[in-house]
Amino acid sequence: MNFLIENTDTIIFIMEIIGTIAFASSGALTAVRQRMDIFGVNVLGIITAVGGGCIRDLIIGRTPPVMFIRPIYALTALVTCNVIFILLYIKRNLLTTTTHLMTVYEKLMQLLDAIGLGIFTVTGISTGMDTPYSANLFLVVFLGVITGVGGGVLRDILAAQKPYILVKHVYACASLSGALVCALLWPLGSIPAMWLGAFSVIAIRILAMIFHWNLPRLKNME
Amino acid sequence: MNFLIENTDTIIFIMEIIGTIAFASSGALTAVRQRMDIFGVNVLGIITAVGGGCIRDLIIGRTPPVMFIRPIYALTALVTCNVIFILLYIKRNLLTTTTHLMTVYEKLMQLLDAIGLGIFTVTGISTGMDTPYSANLFLVVFLGVITGVGGGVLRDILAAQKPYILVKHVYACASLSGALVCALLWPLGSIPAMWLGAFSVIAIRILAMIFHWNLPRLKNME
Amino acid sequence: MNFLIENTDTIIFIMEIIGTIAFASSGALTAVRQRMDIFGVNVLGIITAVGGGCIRDLIIGRTPPVMFIRPIYALTALVTCNVIFILLYIKRNLLTTTTHLMTVYEKLMQLLDAIGLGIFTVTGISTGMDTPYSANLFLVVFLGVITGVGGGVLRDILAAQKPYILVKHVYACASLSGALVCALLWPLGSIPAMWLGAFSVIAIRILAMIFHWNLPRLKNME
Repeated sequence: MNFLIENTDTIIFIMEIIGTIAFASSGALTAVRQRMDIFGVNVLGIITAVGGGCIRDLIIGRTPPVMFIRPIYALTALVTCNVIFILLYIKRNLLTTTTHLMTVYEKLMQLLDAIGLGIFTVTGISTGMDTPYSANLFLVVFLGVITGVGGGVLRDILAAQKPYILVKHVYACASLSGALVCALLWPLGSIPAMWLGAFSVIAIRILAMIFHWNLPRLKNME
Repeated sequence: MNFLIENTDTIIFIMEIIGTIAFASSGALTAVRQRMDIFGVNVLGIITAVGGGCIRDLIIGRTPPVMFIRPIYALTALVTCNVIFILLYIKRNLLTTTTHLMTVYEKLMQLLDAIGLGIFTVTGISTGMDTPYSANLFLVVFLGVITGVGGGVLRDILAAQKPYILVKHVYACASLSGALVCALLWPLGSIPAMWLGAFSVIAIRILAMIFHWNLPRLKNME
Repeated sequence: MNFLIENTDTIIFIMEIIGTIAFASSGALTAVRQRMDIFGVNVLGIITAVGGGCIRDLIIGRTPPVMFIRPIYALTALVTCNVIFILLYIKRNLLTTTTHLMTVYEKLMQLLDAIGLGIFTVTGISTGMDTPYSANLFLVVFLGVITGVGGGVLRDILAAQKPYILVKHVYACASLSGALVCALLWPLGSIPAMWLGAFSVIAIRILAMIFHWNLPRLKNME
């Protein structure tokens, strides 16, 4: 516990990089499935990884967005996309034949994606708390959620798909819950608030995947 | 007439709330038809209601957008979406069997939507007139139209549909006409300009619905 | 060569107008193919022409975007869209029967579009060099590319299509190459840097069209 608090900056940075890799991978794989070329794979991967933070920064008027000031995230996404593309290009039958490997890979990706969602959500809250609007719970929580899910929404819009978060699984809800936990606990200390917020998101996502949780929806509509 | 002018602030607020409810309803119903879950229904409803104002504020650099400073509109949209979802969930055969009721409901919605379009268009003009760019007719009219139609465009993009305003009916044109009326009459007094602008939009929309007006388009293209 | 340098402002303005006409045409034709009405044709044409610059300005916090301060570009796009619509409306069999004419027209459009892409890319670089972030190569090159391709991306999102630049042809890559050329040569003089950057984009696009260049992509994915 002390270890987590003393090394928070380093651990958060490592988890941000993990989240960036996971988000970039999901963007790159979406692009591959949509038969985009290597440029499209890179664009979709990078946008998925840094798009949420970019929307967040535009909303609070922080221009240019932090992704341009600290290019390490975009660069990480770029490397991720090209590694994925080259691997799949060399072994293009990987995706179709070795079903077992793909299942393992998808589970791993979902886990990394959950970590990314958790970390990005609380860094969004942290950004909001740095603005003059930190008392505006609605804005701060929104910034957390949009940082977490915004990249995935842009990915789906660019792939001309209905956004994943609006259709399936307890995804944005996990982000919303963690954002609330983090924002409400913030006065007790920013570091434990961020850890508890991120852990909430990750726990809800993993439980939702294991138990196939879904939110209620209406059926048989025209 | 005097009554309209003396109580303008209150009346505009009431009509903004009516517009918010109408826009949130259209977003929520779109989400239901797309089989989104309750979270998606809320997101689409809220974005339809406040998205236009949000784009407007980003364009004039007013950050964070007013929807975060005065959350009453987002809250109204939230309540609307959940009432609609719960009603339809309890009586899920409402949408399919009682055709007559649905027709009445749709007509009512179209009327409320016309009111929302009119009010949002002139509040967009009013926002533009508060900036240092009030003499820029092009910008001011654009702000009116984007405030009126922007939420619906975002709704359609998120639902992966061609934007309604680009495909059908005299919709954005009604907003454009009212925006021009309001902006051109503004020097004669902001209050009558806003009323006449809003009434123009609402009248054109209602006439277009009654007489099935459509703008010219080209047919038999590949 | 001296002529190019001495009259740079005029020549760039003329080429910007050519690019605006080309981009507006591509937006208008997309709208016609999607059976949008005359309003939709205008909206899609204008957004294709000025959308890239608008995103660029929002990212660097220049509000309102320059398209509202200098409406000549939007106006040029407006006139282009209506001329195209009226021509096609009068001779609506043009698009279907006279195949040869259409082929010529499409080749011409692709050439103008290449010019537009080149010019818009380097004006994006030039805008970036005017900000306090001119030393940030990543940001400056991004501003060039987004100015060049952003309008086309918005066009495709609004038409509910997968963005053209992510799917086909060496398009965004041409913009990226020219942006790099222009940004890297900038210290040697802004005017030759802009010319060489724009020429790079145009040359790559034309060669890609002649030789049917495409970037690698993965096939047979599910």
